[in-house]
Amino acid sequence: MGETSQPTTARESTSRLGLGQLRVVPPRVERGEDEGEAPLRSLDIGAMDLELGGHLENVTLAYRTWGRLNEAGDNAVIVLHALTGDSRASGDGGWWEPLIGPGRALDTDRAFVVCANVLGGCQGSTGPASLDPLTGRPYAMRFPLITIGDVVGAQRRLVEALGITRLVAIGGSIGGFQALEWATRHPDKITAAVPVAATGALDAQGIAMNEIGRRAIMADPDWRGGGYASEGAFPTDGLAIARMVGMMTYHSKESMDLRFGRAPATRPGLYPSFGQTFDVEGYLHYHGAALVRRFDANSYLYLTRAMDQYDVGRNGGEDRWLAEIAAPVLLVGIRSDWLFPPAPIRALGERLAAMGKDVRYVELDSPHGHDAFLKEWGQMGDALAPFIAAHLPAGGG
Amino acid sequence: MGETSQPTTARESTSRLGLGQLRVVPPRVERGEDEGEAPLRSLDIGAMDLELGGHLENVTLAYRTWGRLNEAGDNAVIVLHALTGDSRASGDGGWWEPLIGPGRALDTDRAFVVCANVLGGCQGSTGPASLDPLTGRPYAMRFPLITIGDVVGAQRRLVEALGITRLVAIGGSIGGFQALEWATRHPDKITAAVPVAATGALDAQGIAMNEIGRRAIMADPDWRGGGYASEGAFPTDGLAIARMVGMMTYHSKESMDLRFGRAPATRPGLYPSFGQTFDVEGYLHYHGAALVRRFDANSYLYLTRAMDQYDVGRNGGEDRWLAEIAAPVLLVGIRSDWLFPPAPIRALGERLAAMGKDVRYVELDSPHGHDAFLKEWGQMGDALAPFIAAHLPAGGG
Repeated sequence: MGETSQPTTARESTSRLGLGQLRVVPPRVERGEDEGEAPLRSLDIGAMDLELGGHLENVTLAYRTWGRLNEAGDNAVIVLHALTGDSRASGDGGWWEPLIGPGRALDTDRAFVVCANVLGGCQGSTGPASLDPLTGRPYAMRFPLITIGDVVGAQRRLVEALGITRLVAIGGSIGGFQALEWATRHPDKITAAVPVAATGALDAQGIAMNEIGRRAIMADPDWRGGGYASEGAFPTDGLAIARMVGMMTYHSKESMDLRFGRAPATRPGLYPSFGQTFDVEGYLHYHGAALVRRFDANSYLYLTRAMDQYDVGRNGGEDRWLAEIAAPVLLVGIRSDWLFPPAPIRALGERLAAMGKDVRYVELDSPHGHDAFLKEWGQMGDALAPFIAAHLPAGGG
Repeated sequence: MGETSQPTTARESTSRLGLGQLRVVPPRVERGEDEGEAPLRSLDIGAMDLELGGHLENVTLAYRTWGRLNEAGDNAVIVLHALTGDSRASGDGGWWEPLIGPGRALDTDRAFVVCANVLGGCQGSTGPASLDPLTGRPYAMRFPLITIGDVVGAQRRLVEALGITRLVAIGGSIGGFQALEWATRHPDKITAAVPVAATGALDAQGIAMNEIGRRAIMADPDWRGGGYASEGAFPTDGLAIARMVGMMTYHSKESMDLRFGRAPATRPGLYPSFGQTFDVEGYLHYHGAALVRRFDANSYLYLTRAMDQYDVGRNGGEDRWLAEIAAPVLLVGIRSDWLFPPAPIRALGERLAAMGKDVRYVELDSPHGHDAFLKEWGQMGDALAPFIAAHLPAGGG
């Protein structure tokens, strides 16, 4: 099997136009979006020299928008998705649908909301599954190493092309890294930043869990050194196992006990069973198999590595970079988060406060672990709404 | 590669002698062991009808002993190993070496210490890698499902054959399950029980982590439906990944931060590298590869499933079975344990106390997570020594 999303940008990526220079194609609609389903758009942002020395000749970002950009271009909110997320932040099936819309925490009557699939992703933006213009075949492992700095650098080109002058940056998990990156490396653009369930760097346990997922993918014979796409294969088992490992970091012991406990399985799992099985096993199987249907295995490798390598203090130290922050910051932690526990997030807040920054910290009281930022709509809305509203220009979009 | 320990009992297992009945072969030395290296012995304990309906015609347990059994046979301590452990509890390389010996917490001047490789294991006791006497080939997945009840039932035959009348049962993790099983199902034999880092059942998160490990093994094409041994293969990658997942549950976030933090790798990992690598990744690789050299993949499947299925309250409920406990119990928890956190262990202690049982609870103040019972020699010794000493007969062995 091994069905993956065919990048919608593959065709554009093979174009030789604009190599080596920024070529901005005007978005197909200009400013803002009516209510209803936001269409997937893509923008060619040209060539990029990457932080770790790589180069991409032709980068496309896929994105969606909600609401209308005002004349000053300063009522924008960029919403930054998690590891396997995509640009569908709102609308039918959107991962933050209850938070984005008219009258919601990210109020599209006032704000122009943008969400782009990350560089290195596989939901329309340039990534390892895109066609390498030099070979006409998927980059696979010839894709250059990317960083969160590159991801945000690409986003900056996108928002400038859309006419955005100033924005609020908000996202959870690896999206929270991006919010921190915006606040520290692009303070000229930022009116406020909201890193949710994220600190300034992943810890050893998080790196280790990512590495187990990568190992599972790379050990799958159908990974083919990354070249599966050219060989009609796909590392189905490896990516599914990587996803199962990831799911463990998104849950909490408490949430899994509440939801599954030791309940026996009520239907067969997706894989060969062995002895008496438990409900939680089928849940893991399901999530493993579901990711395989929508995600590219090499993207998983590149994005987890970018996550490992992110360090807000790289090249100069944390003090130097946190000092760059000019905008108010709202940090959101989650009581039961195992991947990014609340204590270091709170400590980051205290550090920013000690530096005289405008920072506040809100902790979600949830049993749902890291994923609470994708589940606790009431608490998330309460935390975000007043802060976002206070940092949008008066008068709205 | 796929080197595994060849079960030392394979030859005996093919013998047709004693099928269907208990055949006790006298141990090669009778009572006790001089100082120094305790030799690996094995005892044929005959046929077993298993808790879940299976049958084994010829079961062998491999074991070691330290100290001397007294005339009454009541100064014994059975030490119960963890998932991938073996009978080498003390002596050179023994996993509890600092705790077992003359003058140590398990004082072999007074106690006769026994440690047997579990039924279903691969270090000399009958398990999936043993030869099935009916086919002359390894059982592989034709091995019957086993439970912790069966593991302890086999141990009971062993200790009776050794002339032991009464014993202290002590072990950590899945060994802690066995200590609870001894205390609740064999109270006539038990003078004291010490379950360390264990509750009465694994929770959903623990089951899930075990399932990810099993999935990695079974997804490895070299697993061959379990029949790798007959086909000259071994699921090297799968078992290594399973071990890496297991290592995560044995560590704590705190211990991994202390030991590895975000330190970069100083040497290449064992597997294809990708981007900048971190020290913790090589550590995982090392432990994955090390288990492959000494452990059988099918044993890993059977023993993790036995771990999942263990429930001290099965067939009647926890109250009914905890009420059976007649001996003093020492429960040991670990502050940073993620697999078996201290709170439910403490709650088990409170429940036993409310039932009028002689129970105490000690918590190790350690950052080392679940594995602290294999590392914190000072605290472990302080917790165990007085309790063990108080429950050995006066006069010693």
